[in-house]
Amino acid sequence: MTSLAAPAVAFSSAPEADEPHSLVMRFGADRPLRMDAGVALAPFQIAYQTYGTLNADKSNVVLVCHALTGDQHVANVHPVTGKEGWWDVMIGPGKPIDTDRFFVICSNVIGGCMGSTGPASTNPATGRPYGLDLPVVTIRDMVRAQAMLLDALGIDTLFCVLGGSMGGMQVLQWAASYPERVFSAIPIATASRHSSQNIAFAEVGRQAVMADPDWRGGRYYEAGVRPEKGLGVARMAAHITYLSDAALHEKFGRRLQNRAAPTFSFDADFQIESYLRHQGRSFVQRFDANSYLYLTRAMDYFDLAADYGGRLADAFKGSRSRFCLISFTSDWLFPTAETRAVVHALNAGGASVSFVEIETDKGHDAFLLDVPELFATVRSFLKSAAHKRGLA
Amino acid sequence: MTSLAAPAVAFSSAPEADEPHSLVMRFGADRPLRMDAGVALAPFQIAYQTYGTLNADKSNVVLVCHALTGDQHVANVHPVTGKEGWWDVMIGPGKPIDTDRFFVICSNVIGGCMGSTGPASTNPATGRPYGLDLPVVTIRDMVRAQAMLLDALGIDTLFCVLGGSMGGMQVLQWAASYPERVFSAIPIATASRHSSQNIAFAEVGRQAVMADPDWRGGRYYEAGVRPEKGLGVARMAAHITYLSDAALHEKFGRRLQNRAAPTFSFDADFQIESYLRHQGRSFVQRFDANSYLYLTRAMDYFDLAADYGGRLADAFKGSRSRFCLISFTSDWLFPTAETRAVVHALNAGGASVSFVEIETDKGHDAFLLDVPELFATVRSFLKSAAHKRGLA
Repeated sequence: MTSLAAPAVAFSSAPEADEPHSLVMRFGADRPLRMDAGVALAPFQIAYQTYGTLNADKSNVVLVCHALTGDQHVANVHPVTGKEGWWDVMIGPGKPIDTDRFFVICSNVIGGCMGSTGPASTNPATGRPYGLDLPVVTIRDMVRAQAMLLDALGIDTLFCVLGGSMGGMQVLQWAASYPERVFSAIPIATASRHSSQNIAFAEVGRQAVMADPDWRGGRYYEAGVRPEKGLGVARMAAHITYLSDAALHEKFGRRLQNRAAPTFSFDADFQIESYLRHQGRSFVQRFDANSYLYLTRAMDYFDLAADYGGRLADAFKGSRSRFCLISFTSDWLFPTAETRAVVHALNAGGASVSFVEIETDKGHDAFLLDVPELFATVRSFLKSAAHKRGLA
Repeated sequence: MTSLAAPAVAFSSAPEADEPHSLVMRFGADRPLRMDAGVALAPFQIAYQTYGTLNADKSNVVLVCHALTGDQHVANVHPVTGKEGWWDVMIGPGKPIDTDRFFVICSNVIGGCMGSTGPASTNPATGRPYGLDLPVVTIRDMVRAQAMLLDALGIDTLFCVLGGSMGGMQVLQWAASYPERVFSAIPIATASRHSSQNIAFAEVGRQAVMADPDWRGGRYYEAGVRPEKGLGVARMAAHITYLSDAALHEKFGRRLQNRAAPTFSFDADFQIESYLRHQGRSFVQRFDANSYLYLTRAMDYFDLAADYGGRLADAFKGSRSRFCLISFTSDWLFPTAETRAVVHALNAGGASVSFVEIETDKGHDAFLLDVPELFATVRSFLKSAAHKRGLA
């Protein structure tokens, strides 16, 4: 690859965009990313992290695909928040994805804001952040970029590719686009397309961002402002969809926040209000609003069957990858029925499929949380797949 | 009652607030509304509509309680939108609530924006709109005001009180506060309390309004602006919760809006996006943003059991009213389980209860739509109740 370091521009809204605290693979003008929008993006870069050691025949690679608001810092302290990695419970020595055995790679998606080229990155043509001048990104674009990263790293085959939610969409895209490179795949809490209701919630989030006058048509970076209120509202709305009615009832119910009686006001009387406001506030400190627009849009456009004449089974025809699909009973954003549709398509194509629906009240967020049955499922599937792959 | 006409102030955001196209009952300083917030509101007014004819012994009164974004224009052309009444399918000659037999009353709730005292009404102390100076309103305040309206009209007993959603909360409050005045009651698609998830969605809507700089701390009236973008986002988010995943899939799916292929942009490519944006835009033309804050807050504070030591059954103890509760299978905002909890409480108190769960994919909105089983249920319950009441 060619290393074309963009000039470091310190916009407070996305300090990691150009020069992240991460490994970075830079692709020059000779290696453009051919995007679904019909544009060849060049130069571009991919920020990524690795854990564990690549074995001699490069057969122990696990690619983790992150979700909408995740990033490549899957199992290390996050450079912006100082918190542990978002999947620290899953990945590490002796953990379900055991870094004593596997070489784990996670890259920030194209369109993100943690060092892979996204709307907050400097547009080399102007020297200013792209803003909305970046072409709209698709899930397939994300996966294409990941494949180019692997090529650059000299890695041909993935022992396993896994991820939840938008990460799971990437897993399905990997299995469809590069079946010969995927030995096994674990799509979690995901679907082969964004439903009408999901598009609706995504659109509410985008409208909330765009309604904020500090958004400024996406050119807020140069103005030194950020659409914090709009992005905060978007996050609050989205956060409700990640939980479940039962989980909210259990966790907060109608309990009041540090007070004995309602104040008869618009203060955050209820714990759930206080919690949501906190979610909104903390999110805007670490995430770029334009990236939020791009990544929700990528999910909206995702419809794997549509790329195969409306026949989802054709997306996986003849696949020799081994699949383990996981859904959660209380996930109403990506309900089990969506996973089941994928299972049926895989079965129709004669693929090797196991499917586990995990009983939990934690909602969509369950894939990120301490859910023992999730860990056990991933661990045992990887063990079996490793055996088939001939890994020690 | 005393008639204290406030000076007509034509604020475009709530032209109906002081001098509505409606019947109006005005209460003077001698007849304050004693509010749960501890304030005696005076003067205040209630805007209402009636349909049909009051019989000689005033025994044929049906009180309709409207939902969050409804108003008193239940079965006549709406003075602002020019559309037919919001429950035109339910109320009229020969319809389930037959105005050839019943005298139907519907009043705008306190806190509303169609002529009952609300945040857009002129505060007599200042000559300016109340804005957030209006005390926070509760469901019980709404019902107290309705009882005062009935007193002023010389009506003692309601043959039936009915309504859906926030209207259903008022119905339950009527049955609890004035059991002797309620011959029969039909709470539809409602609950005895706002759940944690419902508070969460309400809070997102309020934060969207308050995030709009045109909200100006609630004092937008005088500035001649309106927080249209914020209220539009609030409406879009809420509107999703009124439908169902299945209804959205059926009605919109992933179909594109007047185009053959995605534009790879943030335009409203999908029909669902176009539909939601339209919902947002049209709503802000007819509804006051501060009223939206007040009425969602009233729903949040509603917790009927809490007023009775946590025992919901005690709210209806010894009630001789006849109840018909109705829920909808696909309503996830007020799921059947909430209605069932009320049914159990009523049964525990030995009340006369029937309960119908209607199979539909229309979601919470079903109570407003053409759902034959809803009409049949209301019609037959009223027929039976009328027989018991000795109505011709």
